Amino acid sequence: MNYREWVRDELRGLSKSMGFRYTPLKEIERRISRLREAMETQGMDALLVVQKMDLYYLSGTTQDSTLFIPLEGRPLLLVRRELERAEIESPLEEVVALTSMRELPALIREHWGRLPHTLGLELDVLPVRDYTKYGDLFKGSRLMDASSLIRDVRRIKSPFEIELMRGAGDIGRKTFQRGKEILKDGMTEIEFGGHLETVAKGYGHEGLLRVRSLNYEAYTWHVLSGPSGGIVSQSDSPMGGLGLSPAFPVGASLRAMRAHEPILVDFGICYHGYQADETRMFSIGKMNKKFIDAYQACREIHDAVLEETRPGADCEAIFLNSLRLAKRLGYGDSYLGPPGLQTRFIGHGIGLELNEPPFLAQGHSYPLEEGMTFAVEPKIVFPGEGSVGIENTLVVTKDGYEILTPLEMDILEV
Amino acid sequence: MNYREWVRDELRGLSKSMGFRYTPLKEIERRISRLREAMETQGMDALLVVQKMDLYYLSGTTQDSTLFIPLEGRPLLLVRRELERAEIESPLEEVVALTSMRELPALIREHWGRLPHTLGLELDVLPVRDYTKYGDLFKGSRLMDASSLIRDVRRIKSPFEIELMRGAGDIGRKTFQRGKEILKDGMTEIEFGGHLETVAKGYGHEGLLRVRSLNYEAYTWHVLSGPSGGIVSQSDSPMGGLGLSPAFPVGASLRAMRAHEPILVDFGICYHGYQADETRMFSIGKMNKKFIDAYQACREIHDAVLEETRPGADCEAIFLNSLRLAKRLGYGDSYLGPPGLQTRFIGHGIGLELNEPPFLAQGHSYPLEEGMTFAVEPKIVFPGEGSVGIENTLVVTKDGYEILTPLEMDILEV
Repeated sequence: MNYREWVRDELRGLSKSMGFRYTPLKEIERRISRLREAMETQGMDALLVVQKMDLYYLSGTTQDSTLFIPLEGRPLLLVRRELERAEIESPLEEVVALTSMRELPALIREHWGRLPHTLGLELDVLPVRDYTKYGDLFKGSRLMDASSLIRDVRRIKSPFEIELMRGAGDIGRKTFQRGKEILKDGMTEIEFGGHLETVAKGYGHEGLLRVRSLNYEAYTWHVLSGPSGGIVSQSDSPMGGLGLSPAFPVGASLRAMRAHEPILVDFGICYHGYQADETRMFSIGKMNKKFIDAYQACREIHDAVLEETRPGADCEAIFLNSLRLAKRLGYGDSYLGPPGLQTRFIGHGIGLELNEPPFLAQGHSYPLEEGMTFAVEPKIVFPGEGSVGIENTLVVTKDGYEILTPLEMDILEV
Repeated sequence: MNYREWVRDELRGLSKSMGFRYTPLKEIERRISRLREAMETQGMDALLVVQKMDLYYLSGTTQDSTLFIPLEGRPLLLVRRELERAEIESPLEEVVALTSMRELPALIREHWGRLPHTLGLELDVLPVRDYTKYGDLFKGSRLMDASSLIRDVRRIKSPFEIELMRGAGDIGRKTFQRGKEILKDGMTEIEFGGHLETVAKGYGHEGLLRVRSLNYEAYTWHVLSGPSGGIVSQSDSPMGGLGLSPAFPVGASLRAMRAHEPILVDFGICYHGYQADETRMFSIGKMNKKFIDAYQACREIHDAVLEETRPGADCEAIFLNSLRLAKRLGYGDSYLGPPGLQTRFIGHGIGLELNEPPFLAQGHSYPLEEGMTFAVEPKIVFPGEGSVGIENTLVVTKDGYEILTPLEMDILEV
């Protein structure tokens, strides 16, 4: 059977029958049009999109490709592998094969008539060695940093994107609910995490949580029981957990979970690339009163943040208010980490990546806007004993917010 | 309880009781000494290690840190988060806190007496924006590309590293064996993948397969049944699978697996950061003869590659010989992918990352050396129907090879 014919005849139908949703052309056009407004302001003639999530956002495909977006004229998607599949996934009209990076200038000239005077690249993630190659290929173009532009456009989510994030939240809800049937005394943290992941994947969870960073890694087995919850590690989060080795010193460990301990499950779900981040507490039998009280404080802080969430609210102010409330509730020294190691954020933007703007954090004084999505996660850490917390993912609406991770907030006790 | 005291008193014991193995000082010293030989040849005064796996290799920790290695004098580990934990994980003697990147030059001068004339950085992965910051911080230093140096040193594995890779292979063996109890008619690919992952994690598998690349992502749920196995996707691999959405168009899908289909499971295991990559065929009832025959051909090619594996053998020649054998066996058009989409490698180096040298591939004419580790993976693809293949991870020994993924190679039929 001829592969290319098979793909053209069969792949779209097969994918759709498995629940694939493709980004509509109108959606892509709106995104590119917002991007072009920013490009014009910056005097950017054209943009070369390389990074996978930016590419997905602006073309609809994650096939191995490069996307050329001129300020005026049609975008050109150049595909290394696999062309037929990119043609199905992307609604863009101009899709061509790219055999080698060296062909880029010729293909762009053929498509657009000339090479750009100024060319934007994602310099926040593009490796130096690749940048040097682009410099050699586009000797007549001035290379500029386009990463802030793209991140800015991606900050405000469309109804189409919010619907996919609701899909992720829905998988999360079903997964946490099933968790009560899975959790058993003596089970290890990592086994519990693994079972939860399998359940989530059965509903379409994609398993990889993308992060825009060279070194920061996200993962979906953040199950911390008892003392594991009191351990800080490499990431900028209130607690990291013990992990499995010095090569992976975060998240669930081989520790067996026991009755009455706090079991914190911080679980990100990915559906069609869009993430929803969520934390709930589990326990086997009743948790000790110290943890129940602290969890109650986390809920109060969570509710207070939601109360403030609406267009125009200042991100830094929300964070600082949560600090004051934590202090008032008696958790000044354990809120967001042990003393001296406390993180300085109560919320992080989320979408195709886990570390998007806005950041509800110290030094981030800017207003919330309608369509922004973020996770809010008050947590309280007792070194050597454990930690508690709650987390939901929200979208800022016209008048307030909508929770994208709807699920009961009581402790999930088995 | 004071967090820092708790870590100092308790964390090492807790970690060891959970099976953590730390890199010995002698091991780190040998690695750094080999690196220094290369630095001297290149005229590199000092090196700043940023990327997580290079950092782990050269310091023993993956805490959020930067490692300064001068040509002469003690290395200095500068830790952002978390200092106490890095002190436990790394055997290096000079470990200090780093509050902000801006402090780097002052801390280095204090430690080493001066700033370097030439400073190596990992330019194959370091983002341009970070590079610019280092340029501003080290204005008097000439920045150089140190990535090939580090990759070269990492190419040859020590007995300590090979032992960890054996550990990964051992988890793989137990996981595949359990797979025969898990696989059921009608189960979806992704559920089967999820259950295998959970089993592997229960034995200490770390779940994330690291890759040295901006866009290339690895994952551990590559379960392809029937037609899924005949689909090519974004990665440079013979087949990619259907995946779960346009955002993740590779690997297992929501397709229910059926009797007599070929079910290809390509599963990477990570133990203490070290990966072992392995592929076996499963089937529910007997596979159709076409696939059994093709699988037999894969085994012949696999055995022929092993036959050639020894120090001095040329990597490109091994690949080209495998092509000739595939043709002679009647699989010229389906070996390593459908016509026009066939990949040009039969093996890839593996260790802390999935894409290390050596590459047994077209254009890679260099000799195998003792201590190199690679995965060999002959695969045969029938578009629209399915694919078969086998994969093992090997280490090159003095006289030949050792298989690090020992497991029966017959079809795992349930």
